[in-house]
Amino acid sequence: MNRILFAEVQTILAVVLRQLGFTADRAQTCARLFAETTRDGVYTHGINRFPRFVATIGNGCVDPAGEAAATARYGALERWDGHKGPGNLNALAAMERAVALGREHGVGCVTMGNTNHWMRGGTYGWQAAEAGMIGICWTNTMPNQPPWGGVEPVIGNNPLVIAVPRAAGPVVLDMAMSQFSYGALESYRKRGEMLPVDGGFDSEGNLTRDPGAVEQSRRLLPTGYWKGSGLAVVLDMAAAMMALGRATYEIAPDPLLEAGVSQMFLALHPAAFGPASRAEAIADAVVASLHNSRPAAREGKVRYPGEQTLRIREENLRLGLPVEPVVWAEILAFQQ
Amino acid sequence: MNRILFAEVQTILAVVLRQLGFTADRAQTCARLFAETTRDGVYTHGINRFPRFVATIGNGCVDPAGEAAATARYGALERWDGHKGPGNLNALAAMERAVALGREHGVGCVTMGNTNHWMRGGTYGWQAAEAGMIGICWTNTMPNQPPWGGVEPVIGNNPLVIAVPRAAGPVVLDMAMSQFSYGALESYRKRGEMLPVDGGFDSEGNLTRDPGAVEQSRRLLPTGYWKGSGLAVVLDMAAAMMALGRATYEIAPDPLLEAGVSQMFLALHPAAFGPASRAEAIADAVVASLHNSRPAAREGKVRYPGEQTLRIREENLRLGLPVEPVVWAEILAFQQ
Repeated sequence: MNRILFAEVQTILAVVLRQLGFTADRAQTCARLFAETTRDGVYTHGINRFPRFVATIGNGCVDPAGEAAATARYGALERWDGHKGPGNLNALAAMERAVALGREHGVGCVTMGNTNHWMRGGTYGWQAAEAGMIGICWTNTMPNQPPWGGVEPVIGNNPLVIAVPRAAGPVVLDMAMSQFSYGALESYRKRGEMLPVDGGFDSEGNLTRDPGAVEQSRRLLPTGYWKGSGLAVVLDMAAAMMALGRATYEIAPDPLLEAGVSQMFLALHPAAFGPASRAEAIADAVVASLHNSRPAAREGKVRYPGEQTLRIREENLRLGLPVEPVVWAEILAFQQ
Repeated sequence: MNRILFAEVQTILAVVLRQLGFTADRAQTCARLFAETTRDGVYTHGINRFPRFVATIGNGCVDPAGEAAATARYGALERWDGHKGPGNLNALAAMERAVALGREHGVGCVTMGNTNHWMRGGTYGWQAAEAGMIGICWTNTMPNQPPWGGVEPVIGNNPLVIAVPRAAGPVVLDMAMSQFSYGALESYRKRGEMLPVDGGFDSEGNLTRDPGAVEQSRRLLPTGYWKGSGLAVVLDMAAAMMALGRATYEIAPDPLLEAGVSQMFLALHPAAFGPASRAEAIADAVVASLHNSRPAAREGKVRYPGEQTLRIREENLRLGLPVEPVVWAEILAFQQ
C-alpha cells in the first residue's frame, strides 16, 4: 500500500474524468468525492472503485454529460430525473436541493429515478449534517441478495443513511441491508479469516461464518435476518414509487451494468423550533450516554455511528490517502 | 385460549377506559386500537398489553385527559406536545396530521415529545397507507438493550415503521432494533424452544440461542449486531432533536414507568406526480418479484412485510379475538 496526498489524487482523477468528457467543474467535484471517500476510510467505494466507475462510463451506463434535474415540484417534494449521470454528482445535487427544501419547509424531499450508483452513501449524510440538517437518504440497488425465506438474489442491499448534525462532528449511520458486502467477504477470505458473525448460508442452507462458502452460494444474509430483508423491500418500493423509477427487480444484476436506480433524499430542519445548539445538545448528550456506558471488552469503547471517521480522515490527510499500487497504476494508465 | 368477538372486546375495553376518565369518544378509539392490534395478530401489544396500560394510568404515567396538540408549525413540519396522553391516541392524531401535511406539501412531518408508548407501531403505518400515503414513523423507548460493544442497556429498541399503500393491501414493515423482544424470549422459553438464530449474549459474553440465558444477562442482541445498534442511536437522536423531547437515556428503564418518549411521523405522497395506481403498480410488481422467486423451503413462500396480516385479521374477525383467560379475567375485574 502506498500513500498519495489528497490533492494529487483529486487532480489525477479529475484529469481522467476530463478526458472521459466531464466538464472541468464536474470532473473536480466527482474526483473530490472519490478522494474524500478514501480519505474517510471507506476504501471499497473510493479510489478502489474508480476503475469500475470508468468502465461504466465506457459501456454507456453512466453518461458524463447527464445532469440530474427537477422534472416536477409539489410543495416540499421534488421529483428529479438523474438522466443517467454520474451517481455521486447526481446524489450531491439532490441532497443539496433537499436541504434547501428542508430549510424552507421544515422537511424537504427529493426523489430521483434514472440515476446511478451513488458510491459512498455516507457522503450525502455528511453533506446534510454539515449544512445543519438531519439527512435521511436511501437508494435501491441491483438484485444482490436473497430475501428472507428465499434462495434467489431478487432483492437489493439498499443502503440507508441517517445523519445528525453536531458541533463536534456529525453522527452518520450508513448501513446496507446485507450483513456483509461481497467486498467484505472477499477481504475476510483473502486474509484467511472467518467472519465475526454469520454472514450467509452455505450451499447446504446452513448459516455460516465462512466467507468463501457464502461467496459460492450467493446467499448473503440480510442484516438482522427477516428484518433487514423486509426493510430492503420497503425502501425499494418507497424509492421507486416516489420517483416513479425502477425497482430492484428491473435493474441488471451485474455490477458493470447496474444502472437507472431510484433514490430518496430527505432533510429535516432541527433548528425549526429553536436554536440549532439546543437540538445538537440532545445529540451530544446521547453520545455522552454511550461513551459513559460500560464496554464489553476491557479496553473497548462504545462508539456512535461514524465515530472513527474524523480520526481516520485526519490521518489520511496528514499521511496521504492509502492506495493499492495495482489500482493506482490502472488509474494512471487511464491518462492518455 | 378463548375467543371473544371483536365488538365485545372493544365494548368492554371502552367501559374500563370510561371508568378511568376517558371521554366516550376517546375510550372507543383507544379500545378499538387495542382490539385491532389483537385482531391483526400482534398479540403482545393488544389485549394482553391492556392491563399494563391500565397500570400506567393508575401510576400517573399516562394521563387519560392528555391530548396531543401542535405547539408550533414550520411549513410542512409541525411540533406536537403529547401532554402525557395515551400513546396510541396521540400517535393516531400525529399520523393523521402528518398525512394531511403530506397531501398538502408532498411530504409532511409531525414530531412529538412528551408522549407515551404507542403500543403497536404498525397501526400508524396502516393508517398512513390506507390514506394512500407512504408512512414512516419511529419512536424511542426506555433503555432496554446494550449498544454494540457495550454490556449495559443504555439504548432503546426504537421501532421503525415503513408502510406502502397498495390496492391489494398495504405493505407494512414494523421492526424493533432488538433481534427479539423480551416478550418473544419469554414465549420461546415457556415453549421450551431455542431461538431460531442468536438472540443475545449469555452471562459469559457468548452469543446464544438460549432465550433464558439472554433474559438473565439482559444482553439482547441488536438487530443485525452493530447495524441495528447504530440505527437505534440515530433514530433516538433524530426523534428527540426534532421534538426537542426526551432521548432514551432520559427515560425511566421500567416498563411501568416508561413515559415521555419522542416520536416522528412522516408521510410521503406517492400520487404527487401521477395517479396513485401508477405508484401502487410499482409496489405490486415488487411483490410479484418476491412471490415468483424460489423459496428456501420446499413448501415455503417468500413473503412481503405484513403479508400475513390480512389472513390473520379475517380469521380473528370471523372466529373472535384470541384472549388468554387469565388476562381477560383481569380486564373484566377492572369493571366496577
